Amino acid sequence: MRINVILWVNLDPIQDPCMHAKLDGPALDTLFRTARTRNGWTAEPVSEEQIRELYELLKWGPTSGNSNPARFVWVRSAQGKAKLVALASEGNRPKVLAAPVTVIIGYDLDFGEQLPKLFPARGEAMKASFAASPVAAETTAFRNGTLQGAYLILAARALGLDCGPMSGFDNAGVDREFFADTRIRSNFICGLGTGSDEKMFPRNPRLTFDEAGRFA
Amino acid sequence: MRINVILWVNLDPIQDPCMHAKLDGPALDTLFRTARTRNGWTAEPVSEEQIRELYELLKWGPTSGNSNPARFVWVRSAQGKAKLVALASEGNRPKVLAAPVTVIIGYDLDFGEQLPKLFPARGEAMKASFAASPVAAETTAFRNGTLQGAYLILAARALGLDCGPMSGFDNAGVDREFFADTRIRSNFICGLGTGSDEKMFPRNPRLTFDEAGRFA
Repeated sequence: MRINVILWVNLDPIQDPCMHAKLDGPALDTLFRTARTRNGWTAEPVSEEQIRELYELLKWGPTSGNSNPARFVWVRSAQGKAKLVALASEGNRPKVLAAPVTVIIGYDLDFGEQLPKLFPARGEAMKASFAASPVAAETTAFRNGTLQGAYLILAARALGLDCGPMSGFDNAGVDREFFADTRIRSNFICGLGTGSDEKMFPRNPRLTFDEAGRFA
Repeated sequence: MRINVILWVNLDPIQDPCMHAKLDGPALDTLFRTARTRNGWTAEPVSEEQIRELYELLKWGPTSGNSNPARFVWVRSAQGKAKLVALASEGNRPKVLAAPVTVIIGYDLDFGEQLPKLFPARGEAMKASFAASPVAAETTAFRNGTLQGAYLILAARALGLDCGPMSGFDNAGVDREFFADTRIRSNFICGLGTGSDEKMFPRNPRLTFDEAGRFA
């Protein structure tokens, strides 16, 4: 007699929608507690594969009506860097030059065009509604494009990259140089790579829970 | 003869600033790949301790000049919910009622007042500069307050909570009811708790890497 036993063990916590794994301490450190904005960069390169992996992760972050208005220019060539450096504030120029990649995070005022594809159930109606309300379209694009910028920062950290977000640059100039003939507007830029401790400040304080809010 | 050997293993990746731990697959799933916006909620409560833990994590996310303009109202009382439900769009009312907590994420146009404390090295000068440029102050508050809203979403997921972000509500009404006598403006709201699969849609598609950007 022979008995075959199949032992099935589910190692994937995702299969159970009621199981909510809490990340461990080192992961929370990597994402939030010990991560620092970088002003200096080592020579360690960032590969195209890493950039694509980063996008494939950040794209899942939630946006209103699945609008996904953020658009990205991954600046890494000498020519691209030279263009961007010329439009950065003086203090940010050496950072853009040194970072292996500086991504321009923009938001597309014409994001509505993509809604029929992005939200099959209601996309046509939403597209018409945003076309009729330019102010609502702009607010939605800026708010949700910015959320996606934050998803980029945390996804990069989750993948072992450091970030150096910056808002000191000539937005209109960047729109002209990198988003010509579109209705994409630049939001902020972010260096990506392996940070050095160069020009790193001691960490500044944060607001306490009670300074930043209250229960109701 | 006796030989004593001390084997020293550093298990803490944080000690070495040049070591960048990549999060494991289940953590990336929890944060991005399998997380879903929730429209229904189980009765599982969210404790005050969990809310404080969430703030203590999200507060570390980077903001321009350490401005930290986001302000939070954690709505969980029957009275608070009733006020917020009355100002929510029809489709969002049952969600606010059912969620253990719905947080209002606002941004403070007067964030400059806090800069001398938040950025000791340059805060006074930055405060004066924002006071002189209301448009720059509003853009900085909205952009960075939104980044902090995204940090909240991902920090909540990291702590094992589900999120249901919503922008369908009467912003002016919420400002009047929850932020009276301040220059705080409501941005978006977000349910927090343990999600159910109620009213959950099949997941919508995202833009491809090439649809959302390019190299330069």
